[in-house]
Amino acid sequence: MNEIRIEKSASLKPKPDASQLEFGKLFTDHMFLLDYSEELGWHDPRIVPYGPLTLDPASMILHYGQAVFEGLKAFRTSDNRILLFRPNKNAERLNVSNERLSIPEMDEAAFVEYVKALIAIDRDWVPSLEGTSLYIRPFIIATEPCLGVRAAKQYLFAIIMSPVGAYYKEGIHPVKINVENKYVRAVRGGTGFAKTAGNYASSIKAQEEAKHDGFSQVLWLDGKEHAYIEEVGSMNIFFKIGGEIVTPELNGSILAGVTRDSVIGLLKSWGYPVTERKISIEEIRRASEEGKLEEAFGTGTAAVISPVGQLHWEEHTMTINGGETGEIARRLYDTITGIQSGKLADSQGWNVVVE
Amino acid sequence: MNEIRIEKSASLKPKPDASQLEFGKLFTDHMFLLDYSEELGWHDPRIVPYGPLTLDPASMILHYGQAVFEGLKAFRTSDNRILLFRPNKNAERLNVSNERLSIPEMDEAAFVEYVKALIAIDRDWVPSLEGTSLYIRPFIIATEPCLGVRAAKQYLFAIIMSPVGAYYKEGIHPVKINVENKYVRAVRGGTGFAKTAGNYASSIKAQEEAKHDGFSQVLWLDGKEHAYIEEVGSMNIFFKIGGEIVTPELNGSILAGVTRDSVIGLLKSWGYPVTERKISIEEIRRASEEGKLEEAFGTGTAAVISPVGQLHWEEHTMTINGGETGEIARRLYDTITGIQSGKLADSQGWNVVVE
Ligand SMILES: Cc1ncc(COP(=O)(O)O)c(C=O)c1O
Ligand SMILES: Cc1ncc(COP(=O)(O)O)c(C=O)c1O
Repeated sequence: MNEIRIEKSASLKPKPDASQLEFGKLFTDHMFLLDYSEELGWHDPRIVPYGPLTLDPASMILHYGQAVFEGLKAFRTSDNRILLFRPNKNAERLNVSNERLSIPEMDEAAFVEYVKALIAIDRDWVPSLEGTSLYIRPFIIATEPCLGVRAAKQYLFAIIMSPVGAYYKEGIHPVKINVENKYVRAVRGGTGFAKTAGNYASSIKAQEEAKHDGFSQVLWLDGKEHAYIEEVGSMNIFFKIGGEIVTPELNGSILAGVTRDSVIGLLKSWGYPVTERKISIEEIRRASEEGKLEEAFGTGTAAVISPVGQLHWEEHTMTINGGETGEIARRLYDTITGIQSGKLADSQGWNVVVE
Repeated sequence: MNEIRIEKSASLKPKPDASQLEFGKLFTDHMFLLDYSEELGWHDPRIVPYGPLTLDPASMILHYGQAVFEGLKAFRTSDNRILLFRPNKNAERLNVSNERLSIPEMDEAAFVEYVKALIAIDRDWVPSLEGTSLYIRPFIIATEPCLGVRAAKQYLFAIIMSPVGAYYKEGIHPVKINVENKYVRAVRGGTGFAKTAGNYASSIKAQEEAKHDGFSQVLWLDGKEHAYIEEVGSMNIFFKIGGEIVTPELNGSILAGVTRDSVIGLLKSWGYPVTERKISIEEIRRASEEGKLEEAFGTGTAAVISPVGQLHWEEHTMTINGGETGEIARRLYDTITGIQSGKLADSQGWNVVVE
């Protein structure tokens, strides 16, 4: 790993009111950049003032979407330490995405160091209000100016950061979700398991239609049979059916969420059986009809845990736990946010301290 | 349509040697830009010197790949006119892509005018050597700086142009193609019929593996059953089986190629039956075994017609027409390139003259 070059911003922006933050609209004073070329590999790590990138209009990212990204959060504890939640998992997943997109591998330890270095410089941007955090967005884009369709020979790795408000301003509450029947997000053999630009582009239309119909998110079914549950917009999904907790297995078309992994770890440590398997939407409908659908919740970095109060699929409306947050969802939410904010003991060794 | 503002480049680049051109590496002196905002719609059409774009690092294109593009060519005739091949079809398809990607619609007549205006400024860049042309790349990217996953509220439409060499330097010749068994490009309900960045990102790895194994391209099968033929990397595909010419129907997961449409039109005008239908790879294998697989060729803007000499699928190697260019492929190639370059009468009314 090379030394990180640091160019500090001449003037710092005013910090926002932490109770008024919108997601991903306001960025900190600095950003981290790192270049890749065939000759030099990943080189020239630097922290510079946050500002526009200059890209040739023929840069491959703008045409062929060769790009991957990550998303993680840093939290300020009551004793003013700054904690990162499981950044090594994001480093690992970035390389899984890189491999699928033919983007050169990154050193995972260096990735974590870069994230930490940037936070250290902009540490005053980590908000302290209950439920707030600093969202960190590392990403890689193909910058080579060439219209041939192939893997690029030049890339830019960047990290930008945005203070984010509490996801649940009035306490955790359940959402209404639509099971998508027309559009498909991913299929086996595609890029569903990678965190790559195109997966999100292809999801926008379904999300818009769902929003228009009064749902907050879309639940995707598999691309092959339109029968098996995959994941929600930017969350993995869990169900509790007749006492058993289930979540779709990592089948190659869904993202391996860090929160998903954390939830499975916690549930197992609490002695709950968790099964990763195929789950058909018909199984969920039947469980609902038979009164066995006890809980449903999404898991992801943004919301941590998002209880599902209602699920719509074709002509079926399934209300879950009377539309209220379930006991397991609540306990998971309290535990994970407690660990992240330093209020609860980090029994799993998940937190990384930013010095 | 607003007046196009023109800012000419102070110094013009030297023109390249037309016999040495690589695809999409060198660009003309100018580019066309047009902005979109919610308040103003598409506005401020302008031609400016070719140069870098400044993009906020949070621009949605860089994270979520909300982007579409087109590709078409202009040709110089022996009497020094400049002809565009069917630009209205690209304008139409751009809006099909826009609709799928939740990008605001463009005025199709304006699109053609913009392309013509840019070519008119850089007309000296249209090469005259046999087989050469000016490749035109219109594209739209989501520029709004925001990390929320949704349709952007700001876009940039740009056109860049690159002189390209003859695709076949030593005459049209057949290629070896691998039928892809592991990776999937698109599935119904996805974005396969749109010309959007993510489709190409997801194809890179398969293309690389095929190249490594000595094939020039990948033939994609459908994402659902891995049984039906879809298209090649950047071409549609046609077969002649026992006298019948067939091509996969526009099923929602393949691109509606302009060359495909032109080929179907020509074949019909020549009295050949052409059927657009489902074609299984097993049908092709059987036809090959029975000696009925008479021709296979790809169609696309880059190569116009690309005869397939050999097709590999699992353990099967199918040699087509003794590995030689077939009669129909040759006639189509000669006719389309003849019309494009003004050597043959434009009986279909496809050419648009750039004044
Ligand atoms: C498609 C998708 N699935 C699941 C997740 C949840 O992953 P994580 O828990 O790592 O945030 C995300 C968000 O990152 C996502 O984008
Ligand atoms: C995926 C794909 N299929 C087919 C084609 C052929 O389309 P056209 O004949 O319009 O160039 C292209 C190239 O543009 C393509 O990218």
